[in-house]
Amino acid sequence: MCIGVVDPLNMWHEYFSDSSDRVVQFLFFIASTKTSTIPGISIAGANPELTLYTPTLDVEYLVFGMPRTMNVIPVTPDGLPTPALITRAILHLVRAPYMVVNVGAYRSPLVPAVMLPHAVVGGRIDVENALPESYAEKLFDDARKLGEMIAGEKSLFVVGESMPGGTTTAMAIMEVLGYRAIGRVSSSSPNNPVNLKEEVFRRAVKRFGGSIPLSNVFKAVEVFGDPLHISIAGFVAGAIERGAKVLLAGGTQMCSVLAILKRLGVDVRGRVAIGTTRWIVEDRGSDIAGLVRDIAPEVPIAYTMLSFGDAPYTGLRLYESGYVKEGVGAGGAAVIAKLKWGLSLDTIKKAIYEEYRRLLGAGYVKRD
Amino acid sequence: MCIGVVDPLNMWHEYFSDSSDRVVQFLFFIASTKTSTIPGISIAGANPELTLYTPTLDVEYLVFGMPRTMNVIPVTPDGLPTPALITRAILHLVRAPYMVVNVGAYRSPLVPAVMLPHAVVGGRIDVENALPESYAEKLFDDARKLGEMIAGEKSLFVVGESMPGGTTTAMAIMEVLGYRAIGRVSSSSPNNPVNLKEEVFRRAVKRFGGSIPLSNVFKAVEVFGDPLHISIAGFVAGAIERGAKVLLAGGTQMCSVLAILKRLGVDVRGRVAIGTTRWIVEDRGSDIAGLVRDIAPEVPIAYTMLSFGDAPYTGLRLYESGYVKEGVGAGGAAVIAKLKWGLSLDTIKKAIYEEYRRLLGAGYVKRD
Repeated sequence: MCIGVVDPLNMWHEYFSDSSDRVVQFLFFIASTKTSTIPGISIAGANPELTLYTPTLDVEYLVFGMPRTMNVIPVTPDGLPTPALITRAILHLVRAPYMVVNVGAYRSPLVPAVMLPHAVVGGRIDVENALPESYAEKLFDDARKLGEMIAGEKSLFVVGESMPGGTTTAMAIMEVLGYRAIGRVSSSSPNNPVNLKEEVFRRAVKRFGGSIPLSNVFKAVEVFGDPLHISIAGFVAGAIERGAKVLLAGGTQMCSVLAILKRLGVDVRGRVAIGTTRWIVEDRGSDIAGLVRDIAPEVPIAYTMLSFGDAPYTGLRLYESGYVKEGVGAGGAAVIAKLKWGLSLDTIKKAIYEEYRRLLGAGYVKRD
Repeated sequence: MCIGVVDPLNMWHEYFSDSSDRVVQFLFFIASTKTSTIPGISIAGANPELTLYTPTLDVEYLVFGMPRTMNVIPVTPDGLPTPALITRAILHLVRAPYMVVNVGAYRSPLVPAVMLPHAVVGGRIDVENALPESYAEKLFDDARKLGEMIAGEKSLFVVGESMPGGTTTAMAIMEVLGYRAIGRVSSSSPNNPVNLKEEVFRRAVKRFGGSIPLSNVFKAVEVFGDPLHISIAGFVAGAIERGAKVLLAGGTQMCSVLAILKRLGVDVRGRVAIGTTRWIVEDRGSDIAGLVRDIAPEVPIAYTMLSFGDAPYTGLRLYESGYVKEGVGAGGAAVIAKLKWGLSLDTIKKAIYEEYRRLLGAGYVKRD
């Protein structure tokens, strides 16, 4: 078995029925939120300040196989490399078209990238609003227009993301939109800082002062969110309006995209699915199945059975202990690689191990 | 007859044989060159300074149906609107995916757009270099990477452009690469300022001081060119390497793209064609057929038979007197609309006339 599907299975069949003859394109949305610099919130960077550079370095590495803005690829404080290595290995195998969409990276990546006109770095939500006034709606509209522009009726977009701190802002978005999310979002750390995430959210609520939940989706994102999830939601709205399908390639963060779409009344049935990893679905510290059931039960979750239990490198074996888990579209890429191109897990793993070896050899990864 | 093909016909058949089941995507490359501000060089703007804004306003209008950066759409000093109106009308009919690629617009357009990392406004070539040192190669590499990223083996890219002053810099590029181009490039004016274009080139040669032709393509573009044509050449190189085909949707400017590719040794046979208008092919003030014959005789030229002789608006009838002629992919869009979607010239014309009426009604065009 290469792919698992979280019940109900029939939703997955409805979603995937006509997908095999669709044109698959990968999109990687990147942004920064200063929320990631709160000490302890994110390990998607060697230290809190460096998390701001992670999206930039992730896509530079994805495109060129090496970073450009600084001479490092993103690693955790323990030296575990970015999950972009999984995505890069798969992209290399399937050679599918892909693009980067910059909706607010702290540094513009030195790669060709779609720039949204209102791209902006997100604020640290415990002490300031996430976005300037009206930018939530502007980003949504920018990205919806992008979806309308690039989608064909036969398109299938695999949408990955890179934004450290994203599970915290995703949790906040879901909560203020009226969904129970505290303690249910994932983490790239095996020690999910659930209490800290909740505390950040409580501080944001106090700073806001008004009553929650908020019925105004854009206001909710402006105060409590980030530039990323609202942009992905806008893109999905525009793309599916044109007949495209979207595989949200990510973990619990993507549930906030669904929350935004639902509260805006966008009908995602049969058009949108989540593609992720086993490490997310089996994570006891979070609850992607429950979140989707509460928010959009018509959205199926497919996940790759990819396992690194037999990996020759500690930096990969530690995935089995709850490190990293997902990111930069890794899980969804593995799902679609099987479904569209028939690649076996062995083929994918071999490519990932080769890529890891290359990174070791080039000195970008120290941990073998 | 809806489409004409400049001999030899067999090259067109070789190019187009497998094109009907390709996935068509439109790309609009935009840039500014300060060469357009030399009085008399370009009428692609109400006055020389405004030509710098034309690429930005063209794509804003293309995407939204109205400008955003300023409240005007590009018009000639006589009030004739941008040929983007042809392209917009066709895009609306065929609903094909499209993107904007900013390689050096004077103002970043307020639309989602791919930005190349080394995007830069071009210098006024009679008094300064076109590009900063090494930027010709950097732009080529950026755009080649973009081609590699977004091309599938079934892709057919229709590549249009907007850059006033472009025929002058294209002429200069071809001349310094060793092709006879003086007096052979087109103009959006019925009074092609051939002497002024030649004078600008002579001044650039004098400023340079070295001997021409130049064997170093990147040096040639750095001194005499612009950011646009080298970027389109890079994109073509990357895209066809991935199995894609490209329709260069433009007039004599596109011959400089072919010149760059030929001098870099890129094999374009069966992969690249030019798609343009009858107004370009029949223009007595320029010689697209001769340029292609000299530079890349294996590249076919197809052109739409679109005529505005019976148009209800002077602003369109004047195309028949040599105004505007081509731009923003108009000719290539009409060619592909027929070949891929079977649209008749009547259908296309009706949509264009409707769009013209809308622009009159909205006050963006004064000339009826």
